[in-house]
Amino acid sequence: MKLDVKELYQNINMYMNKEVILQGWIRNHRKQKDFGFIDFHDGTYFKSVQVVYDNKIKNFDDITKYHIGSSIMVKGKVIESPAKGQLFEIQAADIILEGDCPEDYPIQPKRHSREFLREQAYLRPRTNLFQAVFRVRSVAAMAIHEYFQSHGYVYVHTPLITTTDCEGSDQMFKVTTLDLNNLPIKEGSVDMSKDLFGKQAYITGTGQLHGEAFALAFKKIYTFGPTFRTENSNTKVHANEFWMIEPEIAFCDLEGLMNIEEEMLKSVVNYVLDKCESEIEFLDKFVEKGLKEKLTKLVNSDFVRISHHDVIDILKSAKVKWEFTPSYEDDIAKEHEKYITEYFNCPVFITNWPKDIKAWYMKLNDDGKTVAAVDLEVPGAGELMGGSEREADYDKLRSRMKEMNVQYEPVEWFCNLRKFGGCYHSGFGMGFERLLIYLTGVENIRDVIPFPRTPGNCEF
Amino acid sequence: MKLDVKELYQNINMYMNKEVILQGWIRNHRKQKDFGFIDFHDGTYFKSVQVVYDNKIKNFDDITKYHIGSSIMVKGKVIESPAKGQLFEIQAADIILEGDCPEDYPIQPKRHSREFLREQAYLRPRTNLFQAVFRVRSVAAMAIHEYFQSHGYVYVHTPLITTTDCEGSDQMFKVTTLDLNNLPIKEGSVDMSKDLFGKQAYITGTGQLHGEAFALAFKKIYTFGPTFRTENSNTKVHANEFWMIEPEIAFCDLEGLMNIEEEMLKSVVNYVLDKCESEIEFLDKFVEKGLKEKLTKLVNSDFVRISHHDVIDILKSAKVKWEFTPSYEDDIAKEHEKYITEYFNCPVFITNWPKDIKAWYMKLNDDGKTVAAVDLEVPGAGELMGGSEREADYDKLRSRMKEMNVQYEPVEWFCNLRKFGGCYHSGFGMGFERLLIYLTGVENIRDVIPFPRTPGNCEF
Repeated sequence: MKLDVKELYQNINMYMNKEVILQGWIRNHRKQKDFGFIDFHDGTYFKSVQVVYDNKIKNFDDITKYHIGSSIMVKGKVIESPAKGQLFEIQAADIILEGDCPEDYPIQPKRHSREFLREQAYLRPRTNLFQAVFRVRSVAAMAIHEYFQSHGYVYVHTPLITTTDCEGSDQMFKVTTLDLNNLPIKEGSVDMSKDLFGKQAYITGTGQLHGEAFALAFKKIYTFGPTFRTENSNTKVHANEFWMIEPEIAFCDLEGLMNIEEEMLKSVVNYVLDKCESEIEFLDKFVEKGLKEKLTKLVNSDFVRISHHDVIDILKSAKVKWEFTPSYEDDIAKEHEKYITEYFNCPVFITNWPKDIKAWYMKLNDDGKTVAAVDLEVPGAGELMGGSEREADYDKLRSRMKEMNVQYEPVEWFCNLRKFGGCYHSGFGMGFERLLIYLTGVENIRDVIPFPRTPGNCEF
Repeated sequence: MKLDVKELYQNINMYMNKEVILQGWIRNHRKQKDFGFIDFHDGTYFKSVQVVYDNKIKNFDDITKYHIGSSIMVKGKVIESPAKGQLFEIQAADIILEGDCPEDYPIQPKRHSREFLREQAYLRPRTNLFQAVFRVRSVAAMAIHEYFQSHGYVYVHTPLITTTDCEGSDQMFKVTTLDLNNLPIKEGSVDMSKDLFGKQAYITGTGQLHGEAFALAFKKIYTFGPTFRTENSNTKVHANEFWMIEPEIAFCDLEGLMNIEEEMLKSVVNYVLDKCESEIEFLDKFVEKGLKEKLTKLVNSDFVRISHHDVIDILKSAKVKWEFTPSYEDDIAKEHEKYITEYFNCPVFITNWPKDIKAWYMKLNDDGKTVAAVDLEVPGAGELMGGSEREADYDKLRSRMKEMNVQYEPVEWFCNLRKFGGCYHSGFGMGFERLLIYLTGVENIRDVIPFPRTPGNCEF
């Protein structure tokens, strides 16, 4: 019976002393004179399976020569293992080579540097580290869908190609079907009317604007899709292509939004802890000591809610020599984020930020100085989510747009949402990779994205 | 107690004769001298709620003037409805206007043409038709994730920005950060080394190549993400941006692939029938008569499996005057697809196609003439999925690439997958919108995408 290693592990009692057929890859191979051990892995489960064969097997001599990395089919009996720490092994009756692998195979059973593995992006998912990371990625994605769908949200595929964007077109990639070496020119500049859409189009940096339109129809919606920024920065947390989750909720104020963010995050962390036990254990052991404890603690903590003003008070009265002086009018720096989450020793929602450092669509508070924005700061992860109540007042929105030089024409329809049965509503964005960095303990965004795109790097 | 209309409908016994608070929008408003009826909708459930008020309510005169489209908060008691066909209604104690809506609101309680609604893409999700379509879209997306995750597949986010692609770069959008009006020139042509990635990048038409790399690590993977084609065609089934699902499975042959496709499709249709009862009922009544029966029939049918050769035999012996003559060497035309699905009166897998009309990465059969490809033809939908066993033999793959003029350098890594523990493997692609057209009965792809992008159209 052909089966996945996952099935075997999960129902081992059913298969004990039975014949099974497994298909997968040789992770490691130790040969002795009259027998051999294959560390067998099929990708469906984090743990591998020990396959044992001896010289009674046909083609014994050939089998001993099978290389690491080769794909094989194993027929054999599941038996109790005499080896310590493993419940069972496979006593092979037959091992058939499916696909060979040369000796210079880049992925050997040893510790490779992350930098080296990035250059082998198409092979690195075969390593323990990336088996763990990319399974967590898949399971965390499902956890997010589970949370929102079970709470009545509608999943909206907002467009990637767009001519309207709230982050500013200088941060967006242009998309075109024109031949760059033969551009149509009209009156001295490129004639964009000749492009497929008849004008300059971009790939988007957010689905929020379109999300709001759907929230005012379905009440609760979320997006989950790729997002793009042209930022030319080579840091551990920046990539030019990443995935975002952007929920948007009608009839929801800032308090309501924080309730949702907190509940959602705990639910996702719980789901991953539950479904990725072996992966989290591995990451805890080899990547971030204390990872499991950190995640468990988050699930059981009550997040603090505090205004930006009160955070600045705390920072000012702290006996710390700041590199950046805390200010009621300014953003907070990395060092401040770190101090505050350590001060409270739990995730912290910071609310009501100075309007000038936040986006034009955020709700202006009655003080005329702050907006109803909220950032979630998480110990060891920094800002994990950013959101706000949206400006629902048409006139106030238009006046903020003028103050901040936001073009009206491309977002006219968005402004109109305030005219046609508008209501108070809120939303937030969560960078999926930032969540993954937190969930896996892996520090570099390049190592939580299957094929990362960063300035100068678009290989594979 | 504030609650969603969905919660109210699903647990009506719990709320009967209780006070509730609802927040949503006025769909319709009938006023009489001493009382009024509001058709109230909050987007969480397909059905609306009747809100009744009389002149004992405060601000009675104001309330009678509330416009269609306005957002309101209703406090009132859930009571049994005297009206036919509805279980309950709300006897309002208080109705508070949250956001007004002018009389010239484009969405009125009447039948609007689809063309008109496309011009109001940001408002159309408020109509019954698009409430149904976009909820089915969300639920079907979840059904797909549920199927694959529960069967042990890893969800992979393949990159959108790419320099390698198997569909050919002439069908891809270029992405750039360069100023089109001020391009850097070197030796007479555009110096792409000055672009963010140091070379010409595209947005992708498929995640298959990257998916294969992950299948050879995790055995079973799927992608689900946006996809782009530059095709300049204005038909009912073409869009420049759409979503695709691309599963890829190691140690899986063509028969195994068909098993997965059939099981997955039935599972998704079942899930939607189960979770979108009201929506399917509405679509059955107003969009495609017999929709529910069609879907139920699919779930209960056994899909036919037949070779391209045998299909041509059937077409040739049919007493039909074909516009396009069926040929063993050619693709089949729309008229042939229609005939074959009607002939068998169920979904039909057509296998083993002539190699010259299929892609370079498909497995060459032993006859040297056909490839192990399979298209699924569904009655009333045409081709819903296309897949193949992949060419796992390095030399055969390289020789097909040469025959078909496929550039080697950008896909060198992909070819190497055949060297490093390669194995027989298969995959398929399903256009999500094509599935939605089938599930909803809506004919035009523009009406199943929230904000569709087609040639000349990139509004909103």
